[in-house]
Amino acid sequence: MSRIFEVDTPAVLIDIDRVEASLKRAQDYADAHGIKLRPHIKTHKLPRFAKRAMALGAVGITVQKLGEAEVMADAGISEIFLPYNILGAAKLARLKALHERVHITVTADSVDIVAGLSSTFAHAAQPLTVLVECDTGMGRCGVQSPEAALELARTIAASPGLVFGGLMTYPAAGQVEANQAFLAAAKAALIAAGLAPAIISNGGTPDLWHAHEVTAATEHRPGTYIYMDRFQVSKGVGGFEDCALTVLATVVSRPTENRAIIDAGSKALTSDTLGMSGFGLIEAYPGAQIVGLSEEHGTIDLTGCVDKPQIGDKIRIIPNHACVVSNLFDRVTLISGDDVVESVRVDARGRVD
Amino acid sequence: MSRIFEVDTPAVLIDIDRVEASLKRAQDYADAHGIKLRPHIKTHKLPRFAKRAMALGAVGITVQKLGEAEVMADAGISEIFLPYNILGAAKLARLKALHERVHITVTADSVDIVAGLSSTFAHAAQPLTVLVECDTGMGRCGVQSPEAALELARTIAASPGLVFGGLMTYPAAGQVEANQAFLAAAKAALIAAGLAPAIISNGGTPDLWHAHEVTAATEHRPGTYIYMDRFQVSKGVGGFEDCALTVLATVVSRPTENRAIIDAGSKALTSDTLGMSGFGLIEAYPGAQIVGLSEEHGTIDLTGCVDKPQIGDKIRIIPNHACVVSNLFDRVTLISGDDVVESVRVDARGRVD
Repeated sequence: MSRIFEVDTPAVLIDIDRVEASLKRAQDYADAHGIKLRPHIKTHKLPRFAKRAMALGAVGITVQKLGEAEVMADAGISEIFLPYNILGAAKLARLKALHERVHITVTADSVDIVAGLSSTFAHAAQPLTVLVECDTGMGRCGVQSPEAALELARTIAASPGLVFGGLMTYPAAGQVEANQAFLAAAKAALIAAGLAPAIISNGGTPDLWHAHEVTAATEHRPGTYIYMDRFQVSKGVGGFEDCALTVLATVVSRPTENRAIIDAGSKALTSDTLGMSGFGLIEAYPGAQIVGLSEEHGTIDLTGCVDKPQIGDKIRIIPNHACVVSNLFDRVTLISGDDVVESVRVDARGRVD
Repeated sequence: MSRIFEVDTPAVLIDIDRVEASLKRAQDYADAHGIKLRPHIKTHKLPRFAKRAMALGAVGITVQKLGEAEVMADAGISEIFLPYNILGAAKLARLKALHERVHITVTADSVDIVAGLSSTFAHAAQPLTVLVECDTGMGRCGVQSPEAALELARTIAASPGLVFGGLMTYPAAGQVEANQAFLAAAKAALIAAGLAPAIISNGGTPDLWHAHEVTAATEHRPGTYIYMDRFQVSKGVGGFEDCALTVLATVVSRPTENRAIIDAGSKALTSDTLGMSGFGLIEAYPGAQIVGLSEEHGTIDLTGCVDKPQIGDKIRIIPNHACVVSNLFDRVTLISGDDVVESVRVDARGRVD
């Protein structure tokens, strides 16, 4: 069995013990509060972890692209939620083909989207379940008010080939009360109209441990929780000891006393800062700051370091944002402690459509 | 023949006429000034464009990773420059294997790197040519002074299995005079020491049209010039009419009067801002601002738009940074005007090591 520092760089290491602990912690929390979990696979893009979450009790998985749904369906997962507005002939045909082999559910936030779905599924053997996406504060997709949610639910319920399945939101981080208020009002309006929502789906890792405060919701869709990252730690969702994904890099140059250059740049770490300073955390060198990235180089300022890494030294970086890193590597290396377990292909990487 | 707006989204469109014009413009400029071109393939990652540049007069290609060199060698390109510090047993073995089938040249900026190269090539049939990387202002890799360049050149020349090939820099944008001053001083010192540099390799698209002012250099390695992007236009290197790479996206939601959501997020455009505001330019809607990206959504502020795109409309985006977009897509669509020519695999995408 080889050791992690023998892996060629740059490489993504996934600590499977931390993965298991995070999956269990979230499932235990959900069980304790009577919330269903429908984890988002965007963070890991690996069928094995999707299946493991379901074995622990998740009711299904969430994906963000048809291509991701296809990969997961091919891997044998049959309960898939795709909270996205699907439109256009090519994508609607793919959705219909998926619907014929797995139980796939989607969202809509406008009558245009509902019309396209209805014309596709009007003559299908089984209707398509559609949830109404609600903008409860994020400012992205979604209907803008509980009243608009009811109106669109009515449209879905009246559309051939479709079944109204409930509500979905991706909320703004930290806005638990506003999220709850919107969903509760929409739920009440739907019940009053005879359209009781079977599912009210809430999401996001930043407020995962507050999911039970959104009492209107029936389920939660966390994604990043499986790997965690520097951003989630900054939000207090977990500690660095929970971070399962690290990027292994090698110091390739020490051009000055206080500058180290590593072989991980934006093609390995991405330029996501998520409002933080620097491009990741190096636990072994707490005084080191990753101050700049070009595509194939990372620039580290060692001014604050007592022990400074030398050329050839390998370092592990907790990235700012784990999900985007998973999308950059064809393969990741599963590890346990300092031991390499297996190299696996990231099957759902790069599914752009 | 299909038309570009029939392509499913998100997709990368490459205008082959603009590619050809940009390759010719740069080669004509280089020829007029007696500068050799050794274009960097990182921007396109496609053997066909590497070969086209060479057919027009480029003396070879530049790559940034061994994996990119392997793809290009497999495609039949035999003159490859890899300006990177190669170290570690795995990478040195790959370099040696490449060196046995193509003419590959590398750089070094420390005695540690030179020692690893020398021990690998000491008994090789042909010596490896190594250039000294110079930090002429970029603050990344490279020796810090002309004197240090001479010292490392002496070490290379004295190392079994290695040949000193000259100097290489990736300069800071806009610092043409400082770049020239460093290289000229290093060149003079080398000549005085009997180590006349065969190659002095300068790089970068931002100062491509100033390459002739760096009279010490013998060649230039532009990369982004083939596609151009919003950043290069902001630097005056070309106009939007030269931008060959665009991301085609679809409006999937219009939740409010002034908000549009597209199906291109950071997985299509990346979060690179390069110091600019927003995440790309939409020529057809000059008042629109791409104000936010999550992984699979782009948020557009339409406040400044008179005509506003509707759900289902497809829009073309000139990204901030073309090179990083090429790395996110397994395939790109070659176009000519509004016609689709061919879908091609991005062979050197994702070569992380």
